[in-house]
Amino acid sequence: MARAINFNPGPAALPLAALERAQKELLDLNGTGMSVMEHSHRGKAYEAVHNEAIALVRELMGVPDNYDVLLLQGGASLQFAMVPMNLLPAGKSADYILTGSWSQKAYKEAKTVGTVRVAATTEKDKKFGRIPEQKELDLDPNAAYVHITSNNTIAGTQWHEFPDVGNVPLVADMSSDIMWRPIDVSKFGLIYAGAQKNLGPSGLAVVIVRKDLVASGRSDIPTILQYRTHADNNSLYNTPPTFGVYMLRNVLDELKKAGGLAAIERVNREKAKLLYDVIDERSDFYVSPVEKSARSTMNVVFTLKTPELEAEFLSEAQKRGMVGLKGHRSVGGMRASIYNAVSLEWVKALADFMREFKR
Amino acid sequence: MARAINFNPGPAALPLAALERAQKELLDLNGTGMSVMEHSHRGKAYEAVHNEAIALVRELMGVPDNYDVLLLQGGASLQFAMVPMNLLPAGKSADYILTGSWSQKAYKEAKTVGTVRVAATTEKDKKFGRIPEQKELDLDPNAAYVHITSNNTIAGTQWHEFPDVGNVPLVADMSSDIMWRPIDVSKFGLIYAGAQKNLGPSGLAVVIVRKDLVASGRSDIPTILQYRTHADNNSLYNTPPTFGVYMLRNVLDELKKAGGLAAIERVNREKAKLLYDVIDERSDFYVSPVEKSARSTMNVVFTLKTPELEAEFLSEAQKRGMVGLKGHRSVGGMRASIYNAVSLEWVKALADFMREFKR
Repeated sequence: MARAINFNPGPAALPLAALERAQKELLDLNGTGMSVMEHSHRGKAYEAVHNEAIALVRELMGVPDNYDVLLLQGGASLQFAMVPMNLLPAGKSADYILTGSWSQKAYKEAKTVGTVRVAATTEKDKKFGRIPEQKELDLDPNAAYVHITSNNTIAGTQWHEFPDVGNVPLVADMSSDIMWRPIDVSKFGLIYAGAQKNLGPSGLAVVIVRKDLVASGRSDIPTILQYRTHADNNSLYNTPPTFGVYMLRNVLDELKKAGGLAAIERVNREKAKLLYDVIDERSDFYVSPVEKSARSTMNVVFTLKTPELEAEFLSEAQKRGMVGLKGHRSVGGMRASIYNAVSLEWVKALADFMREFKR
Repeated sequence: MARAINFNPGPAALPLAALERAQKELLDLNGTGMSVMEHSHRGKAYEAVHNEAIALVRELMGVPDNYDVLLLQGGASLQFAMVPMNLLPAGKSADYILTGSWSQKAYKEAKTVGTVRVAATTEKDKKFGRIPEQKELDLDPNAAYVHITSNNTIAGTQWHEFPDVGNVPLVADMSSDIMWRPIDVSKFGLIYAGAQKNLGPSGLAVVIVRKDLVASGRSDIPTILQYRTHADNNSLYNTPPTFGVYMLRNVLDELKKAGGLAAIERVNREKAKLLYDVIDERSDFYVSPVEKSARSTMNVVFTLKTPELEAEFLSEAQKRGMVGLKGHRSVGGMRASIYNAVSLEWVKALADFMREFKR
């Protein structure tokens, strides 16, 4: 079977070399006669993988020394709860900027924990079709933190410049665009990301958090839900998802070999341009519901004129080995998710198909 | 490299056939041209795997219809918090029976959530060297639940007959011996188990819970931490750890092919007998710190006369390709973990070596 041209929104395509390495080593990690899944998380063979994964996150993203890098379970959805449980003490309030379904979910979950405010929302602008401007933000200078979603997989929008939130810690859910380009980590109090778009398989979340926020976090919550528990134990307090961490290591090792974040940014911008160029050239046929300045480089959302045309588009794409192009059920239309592991060749094939289909 | 003879306490050995299947399919699940890790958790290919894994848990354990089977992240350690968060309302108390380090951890975590009592402890009996008798249990008839740890990996003890707790729901952490033999699930309110001993890789927990307890569980806690959230969504509320679920399916499929729990119980009893027989025959040389009636069929703990002898034992075992025999750092000595995937042949090799080493 030929490899599918995979535009899945997540879990998504992984670098072929990272998968091939896993396949080769699946029964025998480094001559130990055991699968990585069969190694103790307290043994040398696994610990080397674990520490290499954390070191690669630090190196690729340039994480400053005053930040912890945590490898946790539960995905971004558990972070929706852990962020306020740790960082939102009684008597304080947190600001949420709503730019799509996922930030709404984060906000809703935080409401189960403490007091939260909406500092801005673009829900009424073509269903989150844009990112708010700085002047629109109604920020509370005393907020415990400000929460944003850096890329919105369903709406197809992305923060290209992060908001200025003064001295309030900025918390970002970067699940769908972490490591798509270099960023200045020091502008954030906490960054979290489920692995299953740009980093590896599902079942693993990466949390990058400023050490003073870990230290001042609430301690009257269950031990397992405190960031300090994991920070104090190098993410080995309980058994980590060892295979997931191993795959993270494999994926990041490939990313490093390919030149790191500056190099992948160039490819990602080229990929996104290929698709948006077709949409703009054939704007009588393909419609982008998103404001140009907010267009996502990770999830290119577009619609066709009729449901029949869309069904035909999907069917023809499938004949060419392309999968995952159907838009989210809540908005319909098409969505091409072009995360780091989606190759330029695959995106060129899609752009060619889009031109051809129009004819 | 020959396959290591793996006595790791967990993560532990997995069935070779389950790993070989994963290796073969790693780049291509069922002719889809994608790894299972690259499939959407909402797609047909993954959903079939997901539902097969749940159906196999139900079938192998004979789970009654009035129970939900949940596939969650966070391991048993997150269940230490989720059990009281869901099942221990304000104004009620929960009973904990302490038989080792893990039940102590579960108790300590529950204390961060609500009111808990110790209904019995064997800590002072040779450091948890036995399981309490029914008459020793100081049970609160109004308790929200009674919590036990069915097998104690560090102490090397196991509940062979479960306690009678009347109408109070019995909650059991079965992380280290789930599916070692058939049990009557209907005697339990909730069973939970981290996968990384008998079920699959780390990063996945199986929870079997009576539906009335799900329904009456607290709803004033974060959505992601409520059992009902996962029960209402077939464990697909958020992205599950898809590769872990896939491996669970592979492991349980092998278990079913091998005759299910009645068959594996016979093998497990034979394996344990092989090792305890050597210990009893050579009791001047090998010492079991555990009361005979409480001996674990999963973790065979023993000591030698001096630290030097123990070091030599480990070193000689390693020369024979045996790994993972060092006891837990908190108790020392030796520990042979002989979970379901540890073959009779491996255990025979260890028993032979123990006899030979004595000479």
